[in-house]
Amino acid sequence: MKLDASKTALLIVDMQKYQAGEGGNLPRFFREIYGTAAEEGAVKKGKEIIRVIRRLLAAFREAGARVVYLAFGSLTDDGSDLVPYARLWNRVSRKKTGLPAIVPVSDPGYAIMEEIAPRPGEPFINKTAQGAFGASSVDHVLKQMGAETLVVTGMYTNHCVISTCIGAADAGYRVLIPADAVGTWNEKLHEQALEVMRSWIIRSTSSEVIRNLKEKTR
Amino acid sequence: MKLDASKTALLIVDMQKYQAGEGGNLPRFFREIYGTAAEEGAVKKGKEIIRVIRRLLAAFREAGARVVYLAFGSLTDDGSDLVPYARLWNRVSRKKTGLPAIVPVSDPGYAIMEEIAPRPGEPFINKTAQGAFGASSVDHVLKQMGAETLVVTGMYTNHCVISTCIGAADAGYRVLIPADAVGTWNEKLHEQALEVMRSWIIRSTSSEVIRNLKEKTR
Amino acid sequence: MKLDASKTALLIVDMQKYQAGEGGNLPRFFREIYGTAAEEGAVKKGKEIIRVIRRLLAAFREAGARVVYLAFGSLTDDGSDLVPYARLWNRVSRKKTGLPAIVPVSDPGYAIMEEIAPRPGEPFINKTAQGAFGASSVDHVLKQMGAETLVVTGMYTNHCVISTCIGAADAGYRVLIPADAVGTWNEKLHEQALEVMRSWIIRSTSSEVIRNLKEKTR
Amino acid sequence: MKLDASKTALLIVDMQKYQAGEGGNLPRFFREIYGTAAEEGAVKKGKEIIRVIRRLLAAFREAGARVVYLAFGSLTDDGSDLVPYARLWNRVSRKKTGLPAIVPVSDPGYAIMEEIAPRPGEPFINKTAQGAFGASSVDHVLKQMGAETLVVTGMYTNHCVISTCIGAADAGYRVLIPADAVGTWNEKLHEQALEVMRSWIIRSTSSEVIRNLKEKTR
Repeated sequence: MKLDASKTALLIVDMQKYQAGEGGNLPRFFREIYGTAAEEGAVKKGKEIIRVIRRLLAAFREAGARVVYLAFGSLTDDGSDLVPYARLWNRVSRKKTGLPAIVPVSDPGYAIMEEIAPRPGEPFINKTAQGAFGASSVDHVLKQMGAETLVVTGMYTNHCVISTCIGAADAGYRVLIPADAVGTWNEKLHEQALEVMRSWIIRSTSSEVIRNLKEKTR
Repeated sequence: MKLDASKTALLIVDMQKYQAGEGGNLPRFFREIYGTAAEEGAVKKGKEIIRVIRRLLAAFREAGARVVYLAFGSLTDDGSDLVPYARLWNRVSRKKTGLPAIVPVSDPGYAIMEEIAPRPGEPFINKTAQGAFGASSVDHVLKQMGAETLVVTGMYTNHCVISTCIGAADAGYRVLIPADAVGTWNEKLHEQALEVMRSWIIRSTSSEVIRNLKEKTR
Repeated sequence: MKLDASKTALLIVDMQKYQAGEGGNLPRFFREIYGTAAEEGAVKKGKEIIRVIRRLLAAFREAGARVVYLAFGSLTDDGSDLVPYARLWNRVSRKKTGLPAIVPVSDPGYAIMEEIAPRPGEPFINKTAQGAFGASSVDHVLKQMGAETLVVTGMYTNHCVISTCIGAADAGYRVLIPADAVGTWNEKLHEQALEVMRSWIIRSTSSEVIRNLKEKTR
Repeated sequence: MKLDASKTALLIVDMQKYQAGEGGNLPRFFREIYGTAAEEGAVKKGKEIIRVIRRLLAAFREAGARVVYLAFGSLTDDGSDLVPYARLWNRVSRKKTGLPAIVPVSDPGYAIMEEIAPRPGEPFINKTAQGAFGASSVDHVLKQMGAETLVVTGMYTNHCVISTCIGAADAGYRVLIPADAVGTWNEKLHEQALEVMRSWIIRSTSSEVIRNLKEKTR
């Protein structure tokens, strides 16, 4: 599983403040729907993943490999450009918390968590649904850059991560998931999502990815 | 959950002889990879689902609602137009069974199971990966026809069905899955895949779909 | 302008009986809209192009390069899956000639002209609009096959050819047009369409393409 | 040709400083390739179009109809995410003017011309090729917002405008072009591009569009 740095990209899925941060809209929405443990699980997992993604980021940047950020948000203030299921989440969330589940790009919570913020020149791409391949221009960008293997990280394994991984594999990429670099509010759901994908993605760990990327670029 | 027959389409995913039929390439491949129970489970489930889809087909045709068939196959004889993971399956399958896991369109096993074969004028669309939305023209066809709600049926819940359902939801359709009209070789995997999708699809049953479609068109 | 046979595909656009053949639905429609000269021009140009494409086909097949056929047609009998402008053409055409301008796949005129018919194993892809990249799975198929350069041929320069070439260039392919292998009912329209594309396609001739393909594969 | 404000969107194509402004990278590139008249023609046409688009913007905003901005730029600093033909333009442009033809999103010239700048809540979408439908998420956004008719404006008629209009028509939208709201460096090229599209777009004027939009929303 050698990783050629010139053909491998690190995808960072939705590591936005409103998704992964304490008090974020999405963890608060999960509390209302799935209970307090879901909110706490989401925030705790966010903190863990950030540490793992930092190490991956350092390795990819040092190797000169691509880093691409994805974010989930609406381009309009009223969320009318989001897919129907996300508009439904927003209606429910507004009723229960007063806030939308998926924020507009103008919301302060839309930004990427500071510890792993994008650097100038690293593509940052918005999507208006869970899966990046059906609802953003990421496939176009990755194909032009010559990416053939994608290392997918971020949140949530059973939502935007699985949707993006299925789209990536169907678009013809080799998809690696370092299991410690993705997560969700509950271990069982995390494992189920990985289990569903086992026939068309490669499950790995961040350490293994870093080791293989480093070896390759020497 | 009323279903307006003019805006609802029945999607039939990969109910092809080589996928769902006794002795088909794919059940034989599952036997080699997952054991005899997987092959038997797949064929048994195929038979059950065919009966359910027949009832749905009758209701949709009577109501004048759309029926769209999807099939998984390669347009070339050597499978070189398939996504990498399917080419990998084919290499493994050829070694173990002498046959590809995913067949070319010229293979007799490519045809839809006879009991639920398409009628003239019903769109039949090939895809070169699991998910129809990333690897076929189905979104274009459904959008032109004015479909807004999709009732997804077929095999396998944890492969082409989940991939197609995620793509459909991300493309903006309301997605209903009659749980008895989809299946896989193993109940646990079937339930896991449905569980992963619970936040963005509507789980239903074939009877409920038929009842709601009928009510609407009266 | 060397052409690596392993990364170059010949695209044959809409060389179907109803489009390029004598008495075909589309030339008849052109007569009603643009006059007798348009019908005669279309049929005459069809015959010329077929001879050119035959030579290209022989060269590509001998070199082991890819050949991909595109066809324009509706998957439904009533044309309801076609884009709005094509449905409008069909309404006008039915009024004036009794026949649709764009036929369903079940129509005998849908077939490729016999002199340049596809061989088994050569991908044949339907599209439900003029441009193949917006309305078919051709991009998916070409990307998996590793095609990087497309040689585009067929009819009509100012309709499906320009639409497909713009889509191809925007999808990241290098696009070559042998000007004698594409055409329309009127030289001025043909030249205008080529002129519009001059900044993002490479204009060539069939002889030059054949020469460069041959040199490469020796 | 009534325009229902709830289903009609105004598309503003690439009215960025580096494309339409005096001293912009693209007019400077045109000077090197096509001569001084091309640069002057481009800048003059930019000024004319801005006045027309201002009127259209006022009408669309007053009617509560959608306004969507498109911009052409690279998400990376080195332009490696652009399609091959744009990278070629950049190489030639850098040699001749020291500047890229198509700028990165971080370049000050990337911004929309101030007279017609977007307001908060109006979608702003980047594309990495000429045509928005092949190289951005605009189709996804417009479909979710319920847009069925697009009024396309901006620059340049024979480049990004025609590419975007063909993609829009092939994606199933009704496409109106107010001929005075689009333009290029040379009237002949402008007319040729409109002529090529005559069978699948509706040619109109800004006054006619405003009149029909107003009537509808009264």
